[in-house]
Amino acid sequence: MPKQENILIIGAGLCGSLLALRLGQRGYKVRVIEMRPDLRTVDISAGRSINLAFSNRGLKAIKLVGLESKVASLCIPMNGRMIHDTEGHTFLSNYSGRENESINSISRELLTALLLDEAEALDTVTIEFEKRCTKVDFEAKVGCFEDSVSGAAFRVSADLIFGTDGAGSSLRKSYFNDRKFLFSFSQNYLTHGYKELTIQPKENGDFKAYKNALHIWPRGDFMIIALPNLDGSFTVTLFLSYETGEYNFNNLTTPEIVTEFFQKEFPDALNLMPNLTDEFFENPTAPLGTVKCFPWQYKGHSLLLGDSAHAIVPFYGQGMNASFEDVVEFDRFLDLHNGDWETTLKAFEAHRKVDTDAIADLAIDNFHEMKDHIANPLFQEKRKIEMALESEFPYEYYSKYSLVTFKETIGYNEAMTIGRAQDKAILSLLSARKIDASENLNELLKKVQKETSEILREDTIAKTLDY
Amino acid sequence: MPKQENILIIGAGLCGSLLALRLGQRGYKVRVIEMRPDLRTVDISAGRSINLAFSNRGLKAIKLVGLESKVASLCIPMNGRMIHDTEGHTFLSNYSGRENESINSISRELLTALLLDEAEALDTVTIEFEKRCTKVDFEAKVGCFEDSVSGAAFRVSADLIFGTDGAGSSLRKSYFNDRKFLFSFSQNYLTHGYKELTIQPKENGDFKAYKNALHIWPRGDFMIIALPNLDGSFTVTLFLSYETGEYNFNNLTTPEIVTEFFQKEFPDALNLMPNLTDEFFENPTAPLGTVKCFPWQYKGHSLLLGDSAHAIVPFYGQGMNASFEDVVEFDRFLDLHNGDWETTLKAFEAHRKVDTDAIADLAIDNFHEMKDHIANPLFQEKRKIEMALESEFPYEYYSKYSLVTFKETIGYNEAMTIGRAQDKAILSLLSARKIDASENLNELLKKVQKETSEILREDTIAKTLDY
Repeated sequence: MPKQENILIIGAGLCGSLLALRLGQRGYKVRVIEMRPDLRTVDISAGRSINLAFSNRGLKAIKLVGLESKVASLCIPMNGRMIHDTEGHTFLSNYSGRENESINSISRELLTALLLDEAEALDTVTIEFEKRCTKVDFEAKVGCFEDSVSGAAFRVSADLIFGTDGAGSSLRKSYFNDRKFLFSFSQNYLTHGYKELTIQPKENGDFKAYKNALHIWPRGDFMIIALPNLDGSFTVTLFLSYETGEYNFNNLTTPEIVTEFFQKEFPDALNLMPNLTDEFFENPTAPLGTVKCFPWQYKGHSLLLGDSAHAIVPFYGQGMNASFEDVVEFDRFLDLHNGDWETTLKAFEAHRKVDTDAIADLAIDNFHEMKDHIANPLFQEKRKIEMALESEFPYEYYSKYSLVTFKETIGYNEAMTIGRAQDKAILSLLSARKIDASENLNELLKKVQKETSEILREDTIAKTLDY
Repeated sequence: MPKQENILIIGAGLCGSLLALRLGQRGYKVRVIEMRPDLRTVDISAGRSINLAFSNRGLKAIKLVGLESKVASLCIPMNGRMIHDTEGHTFLSNYSGRENESINSISRELLTALLLDEAEALDTVTIEFEKRCTKVDFEAKVGCFEDSVSGAAFRVSADLIFGTDGAGSSLRKSYFNDRKFLFSFSQNYLTHGYKELTIQPKENGDFKAYKNALHIWPRGDFMIIALPNLDGSFTVTLFLSYETGEYNFNNLTTPEIVTEFFQKEFPDALNLMPNLTDEFFENPTAPLGTVKCFPWQYKGHSLLLGDSAHAIVPFYGQGMNASFEDVVEFDRFLDLHNGDWETTLKAFEAHRKVDTDAIADLAIDNFHEMKDHIANPLFQEKRKIEMALESEFPYEYYSKYSLVTFKETIGYNEAMTIGRAQDKAILSLLSARKIDASENLNELLKKVQKETSEILREDTIAKTLDY
């Protein structure tokens, strides 16, 4: 394979730094240019996405680049959802009925720093910061940049340009604005935004709440969640409508109203957050958007990867995992087509698009599940049945959540198709009282499998006629 | 109601001219500004969308403005699809099993001219041409224009601005670019494009093919269709992939290849088109895109309507009908909220968006139906059953096509929900051999209704949990 190609990667976030590391390991000459300052030397967290969920699909990528043990030391396992009601009562709902299946809370900053260190340690990789991409001439394979310190403009030519510059990608904007081809594109916002807050550790550094869970306070149309950090703190995120409901981001304008809202809805959390109102007004409120587009590549010259190709809402904990899986899949297509960039890029995007569309839709499903359904008795009965099935039949039964999160050998689209049919089957059987959680599990499994097959069969027939 | 408001309408196509007429009739002062020359004085057809399907939903709007009899004289009824195979054999597949249900072929130019004449005849309405909107300052309620003849720029202030400026709407672009609010937007292209061609009339002015049908030559991945015109000609449209398949727009580059393609696939049509190759290379190839967005309005100051809010692909024959129904629905919300623009606009967009999303999706379903499924035996058996049911039970049974096209008293979304469940039920029953076209129609109807209810019940349960 010809290794001398000059590769330009725009964006050194999680996806860009992992991609640089992998392409550098493969022997390509990689130049990475990032808009922001180097997060290893400057604190740029600014109250957004401090920690993230890291699970099986992301782990595939970390194994690919040989960083499994280094990453393990950054992880805090979360075995399930700790659900808090308005009285402060809690119960733990496991993510899986199988043993040893959990997701992890990980620091965006620490993980990115590790990937940057590892990439930069290679002779083949250079990384520059504080240089903003203003546009990409993808026909000529030239990236146009502006140095944020000096203000100087400069151009970078490459054999291949990757846009790993996130949801606001400059490469994607160039595709959209230049109109050199038919570019399908969507940006869709939820009516809700989010704001990050903090539960500080105890004075002795201990966690103020149960460490190994993702905490959720579901309230129907809004919620807070909390994920643990290595320093004993939790990062809390409030998801709330901008405009509707009694309390919303537009009317939470004074410390008194914010305190009243938390006192009424999240009293146990409020007790753990003495600095709530300061943080509330210091930290930004950010929108929740989904971006889809196609094609991702142009003539084998350039490729969108990660959030720039498919930004998703955070509710399945799969944003980083999906971006990391992009790199694993891309690496596999590189092997398949042995240096033919155009074939590699086209085959990759055609294969991968179906799965990233699926996780984008699944993530919106899970928004409703987390803020609302987990407090719904029918949903809870379904979860109870699924936990029992997974525990009794660990190899035969995977819930939708498990298919997406723990069965990394199948794609997101297959996980969605099977998982949704299974959910529909269980809910339909439950509501028709044809199954209940106390019956023989062998019988229960057979009924669920039969109803699921029937639903999948009907969907398949309808799909042959594209309905 | 205060009638003195100054209303600016950007775009005098079918939707803009109908809207101007209706608002003028209601007593508002309306200024319409159109980018193109006046089609009543200049031929601007340029080989695109010469005729259109006009049916019940569009008719509601024409009745609202009192033009039923004038429009009737422009209509050529089409009772069904005349399907042509590669041997030149044809069969007619009716659109409905009920009597007197048909769609119409109508000239875009003649219908627009009628609406412009009627609008301009009102004291309250003025229409200007060849003035291009460059952007809209929707915060300040100002439209910015450029006179295409003099090149002069000018600004127009209004109390309310409507963007009826089509799929490339300048108002919508201003919403997108100005980023004053979270604007959800999508543009999605099919892999196919289209090109318009002509079957000229006989020398005596007669039609060369059966007049009262929409002719289709379905070929799986591509097709041609033909709609009749008042002058005895048919407008033929070729729908074909840009890149894939043995013949595609990218490789149909010489008269010889074009003739070979038509000779092989559409020999009976080729016989009627002696000027095929001239037209083929003179007329443009255009893309097929779907545009969705939200919100359509801003603070009660401005509103997108018609294609600017929801451009759809042409395969359901509902593009104009949906835009006209927008005006009917908008008029109804005007009555409801009696001059309060902000409430009117917000209530209208919330109500209407669900239905225009549905027709956008239905139109893509129908692309596959027309080019492919109508030649499929399972689909044909379904159609046969549905024709029998509609004929025997004209008030009890409506096929999906009939719900969308002929049952204008329900919205597109309801038509889609019921119609898709019905299709799924019939296909599932047929493939399991639980029904056949020769059985007692009473029994057949009961089985279809029972299976449809079951599918809708399952969907409803799943939907309560947003799957």
